[in-house]
Amino acid sequence: MDLGLKVWLKNDKNKFFGSGPKNLLLKIEESGSLRKGAAKLNMSYSKAWNMVSNIEKNLDFKVLDKTIGGVEGGGSSLTDEAKEFIKKYHEFEREVEESIKKIYKKHF
Amino acid sequence: MDLGLKVWLKNDKNKFFGSGPKNLLLKIEESGSLRKGAAKLNMSYSKAWNMVSNIEKNLDFKVLDKTIGGVEGGGSSLTDEAKEFIKKYHEFEREVEESIKKIYKKHF
Repeated sequence: MDLGLKVWLKNDKNKFFGSGPKNLLLKIEESGSLRKGAAKLNMSYSKAWNMVSNIEKNLDFKVLDKTIGGVEGGGSSLTDEAKEFIKKYHEFEREVEESIKKIYKKHF
Repeated sequence: MDLGLKVWLKNDKNKFFGSGPKNLLLKIEESGSLRKGAAKLNMSYSKAWNMVSNIEKNLDFKVLDKTIGGVEGGGSSLTDEAKEFIKKYHEFEREVEESIKKIYKKHF
C-alpha cells in the first residue's frame, strides 16, 4: 500500500498551477522557447500558450520574457518573478510531501 | 487563489481507496445495499462491485456483510473492519487537510 497525492493552485473555478504548468515553465526555460518547451512535453503550442496566459492572468505578473530576432528568430525565457514563483512552489510541494508522508505513516 | 488537493491509497499500479470509494461505502451503509448505494452516486452496479472487490483485495479483509432474505430480499452492511478503516481514513484526511492548509498559508 502506498500514498497518492496531488496538489494544485486554483481560482474560484479552475486550476491554473500545478505540476503540469510547472513542468511546462521549466521546459520553456530549458529550451529557450515556448514552442520547443511545449514540444518536449508533447503539448500543442496553443495549449501551452493558454496555460502560460492563464498563469499570468491568475498570478498577475508576466511569466515569459520574449526575445526578438537572433539566429533562431527569437524565443522566450522566464521572468525573474516566474523564477521566484517556481522556487516558492517547489518549496511548498516539498513540505507538503514531507508532511503528508508523515501523516500517512502515522495512520497506516 | 486557493489550494486544490487530492489524496488516495494505491498499490503498485492502481488507486484503490480515496474519496470516491469512501463515499460509496458510506452510501452502502446508509442505504443497506450495494445496489442502492451505487444508485445514490449514479454509479453502475458493476462499477460499485468492482470498487468494493478492489478494496477487499488490497486491504485484505471483507468490507461488506451480506444479509440474506427479508422483505427486500437481503442487502449489505459494512463489516466492523471496514468501519474502523473508514474512521482511520477520515482522520488521515482531516490531518492532511489541516497540515497542507498551514503549509499553503506559509508560502502563498
